[in-house]
Amino acid sequence: MTHKTLHDHLNWRYATKKMDAAKAVPQDKVDAIIEAIRMAPTSSGTQPFELIVVTNDAIRGKIAEAAFGQAQITDGSHLLVFAAWDNYTAARIDDVVKLNVDARGDLPTLHDYYENLKSMYLPRDAEDNYAHAARQAYIALGVALVAAAEQEVDSTPMEGFDPDAVDAILGLKERGLRSVLLLPLGYRDPEGDWLLSMEKVRKPRATIVTEVA
Amino acid sequence: MTHKTLHDHLNWRYATKKMDAAKAVPQDKVDAIIEAIRMAPTSSGTQPFELIVVTNDAIRGKIAEAAFGQAQITDGSHLLVFAAWDNYTAARIDDVVKLNVDARGDLPTLHDYYENLKSMYLPRDAEDNYAHAARQAYIALGVALVAAAEQEVDSTPMEGFDPDAVDAILGLKERGLRSVLLLPLGYRDPEGDWLLSMEKVRKPRATIVTEVA
Repeated sequence: MTHKTLHDHLNWRYATKKMDAAKAVPQDKVDAIIEAIRMAPTSSGTQPFELIVVTNDAIRGKIAEAAFGQAQITDGSHLLVFAAWDNYTAARIDDVVKLNVDARGDLPTLHDYYENLKSMYLPRDAEDNYAHAARQAYIALGVALVAAAEQEVDSTPMEGFDPDAVDAILGLKERGLRSVLLLPLGYRDPEGDWLLSMEKVRKPRATIVTEVA
Repeated sequence: MTHKTLHDHLNWRYATKKMDAAKAVPQDKVDAIIEAIRMAPTSSGTQPFELIVVTNDAIRGKIAEAAFGQAQITDGSHLLVFAAWDNYTAARIDDVVKLNVDARGDLPTLHDYYENLKSMYLPRDAEDNYAHAARQAYIALGVALVAAAEQEVDSTPMEGFDPDAVDAILGLKERGLRSVLLLPLGYRDPEGDWLLSMEKVRKPRATIVTEVA
């Protein structure tokens, strides 16, 4: 792999519209993308989402049906499903505390921090907590898109699907999870992809940036 | 700059707890981070957030007060405020259409796509649209954290602040914006940062990844 910068990665990647169904992403590249997702930062280190890596053809077919038939789901070789916690619970936060204690020692400040977090999160509506957890998955999505580009793997981030249907297909509800994002991985089919030849469109800096000096 | 990988960047970065108030981030590094945020992908390419880059000391002082006094806001040299659209509007989406037409040509499919988007977004509650826009800012946050690490700049992503107060300080409400995230940029103060010497904590892969083969 040649040494490229983040700037190169962001310019190389695009929301691939047509994947080459004959090409599979090698396992070491999938592993590198998963590792980046695992290392992505999250609020208070709770990592409040899980990742379902679907290679099974029949299940990807069902998920594609629940996603307006978007063919990248089946033409790619791997489908990543980001599934956020449906709520913050004492047990889930206690697991995070245990992980921290194991790594950093049994520090009182650590317990205090997460007890305070519980006192904020546990009385809130499940829907608000889910919304907060889902946002953390978007941080990981941003990191994953960079990771895929670094691996020269194409990807297509998708919000357009029926989350209840995907949850049912993958049995997520029973696990206290709700599907938030789909990310098929694969390789672009240059001949079949109408978007590939098009100019990348971004707002000029002056449109989105204000300086307060 | 030596050539590092995303893996290196994700392991180098941490939520810096103490910034060195004597060191400022050079403008070219701030520009590289802003450029990464500008290039971050968003749903349907709407880029539904703006970035306020605050260097003014008095204003950063006021924002710190609205953020539990977190000192990185004033000890760092630049504060990035991610502010999401408070709603999707026809005018905002039409601006995106115009940008696309300018770059890609006056394609009927492009108009159809965004007319369909309007028919979905415009009838929705402002709160739902804001929530969707805010999620897009989190993608850009993920990218920004990588960009900062690549530039060897420290950063501290923050959700813990009073968004109404920050909106008032920056006059965001009048612009149809709502503050979502703060990201101070600066340089770590190794002697004052209790977190720096601690082990990075992440869940093991088996805890967060399920394979469906």
